[in-house]
Amino acid sequence: MPIETKSDEITHHISQQFNNDLDELRNQLLAMGGAVEKQVSDAIRALIDADSELGLSVREKDTDINYMEVSIDENVSRVLARRQPAASDLRLVIACTKAATDLERIGDEASKIARFGISLSEQGEAPRGYVEARHIGSHVRKMVQDALNAFARFDADMALAVVQEDKSVDREYKSAMRELVTYMMEDPRSITRVLNIMWVLRSLERIGDHARNIAEYVIYLVKGTDVRHIGIKRMKAEVFEDI
Amino acid sequence: MPIETKSDEITHHISQQFNNDLDELRNQLLAMGGAVEKQVSDAIRALIDADSELGLSVREKDTDINYMEVSIDENVSRVLARRQPAASDLRLVIACTKAATDLERIGDEASKIARFGISLSEQGEAPRGYVEARHIGSHVRKMVQDALNAFARFDADMALAVVQEDKSVDREYKSAMRELVTYMMEDPRSITRVLNIMWVLRSLERIGDHARNIAEYVIYLVKGTDVRHIGIKRMKAEVFEDI
Repeated sequence: MPIETKSDEITHHISQQFNNDLDELRNQLLAMGGAVEKQVSDAIRALIDADSELGLSVREKDTDINYMEVSIDENVSRVLARRQPAASDLRLVIACTKAATDLERIGDEASKIARFGISLSEQGEAPRGYVEARHIGSHVRKMVQDALNAFARFDADMALAVVQEDKSVDREYKSAMRELVTYMMEDPRSITRVLNIMWVLRSLERIGDHARNIAEYVIYLVKGTDVRHIGIKRMKAEVFEDI
Repeated sequence: MPIETKSDEITHHISQQFNNDLDELRNQLLAMGGAVEKQVSDAIRALIDADSELGLSVREKDTDINYMEVSIDENVSRVLARRQPAASDLRLVIACTKAATDLERIGDEASKIARFGISLSEQGEAPRGYVEARHIGSHVRKMVQDALNAFARFDADMALAVVQEDKSVDREYKSAMRELVTYMMEDPRSITRVLNIMWVLRSLERIGDHARNIAEYVIYLVKGTDVRHIGIKRMKAEVFEDI
């Protein structure tokens, strides 16, 4: 009898440690997410306010974001090798490493936006595009936030909403680009500055794509189905199958 | 005695199966790589030859590439759950899932290039930029090829060369973009078409980034060190440490 109790204790101890490892990994990812979210909002602010000092600080902090990704991946390797997770635990670990890559790329885009913001504050402002950058910027920032909240709460419905939002960001992006092209043709002297704003919009649209990717990993994590590339209709069926 | 032999046989059998699983995974990745490489070269050809039929076929085949990624990731999950690989085997599995993501994104960029090629064949050709697209195109295609060869041969030196190539692609890209901006200002009527070529160059530059990522996973795989974000100097030290 005492031996069994001991073994129970050990099993409990091991599974407790395992849960701690998984929690730590998830917290690490969410902390990285928080840092990346701030990078995006700071980059947009630096652009809108022509604040090159803030822009420079965004570019410097990109290094921290990069190290966060490497550190998450180290942790992922450790958990995989030591704990040999299965089923939903394994999906959590895989989702963490995939999401970390997308967060790192969002960080890269934020850093690029900061760079264009700095250029524009030096060249003089672009004549158009700030309203659109602010609007699409707050849209994709919310997508990143929601994707991370969905991750934190294992909420597939919220994740599906993020995937659907991406379509409307794409529409906003296309319409803003069309307007900027028209403006360029009317005033060729503004081309260089308008191009800078175009690259900013492009980066924002990419951030939306990455938020969508993270949301898709959340659905995979919660539902166990890989929903990438299957279209929103079938994705909905996956998320709502048990209703 | 017969029991030991049996157990030896089983161990051998299991490890044989394990190796088969790893080989299959690696072959799957290399097959996906081959398909993606062809997508890139077809997309560039469709652009240069204004061959919208070829462009359409590239866009259709992107679905196959997407399924290849999903299938590799399914295999990765299966190998992780059943075989519980450690050390270099685990690194191989992780490198496969990471590289598959980059290959899928290269496929996306090829599909975009095909789309711009189709637009240009309808709008009439851009007045500039084809020479640059062809040149940078064959450069990044070679990077993708070399990154995959490095993967196939576990060759860290070749991978390091790919990482270094990315710098020169970035230089070529920037110089081509500068020229196109100048041209746009001189002939504003060409803006829409020149922008399409600019997006093509941008996609090519991204393909170079993804090839670089794959090369970095190869170094991680062979050397066991995560060399992302550490700069080429320190990367060289990692690759050549044992010489």
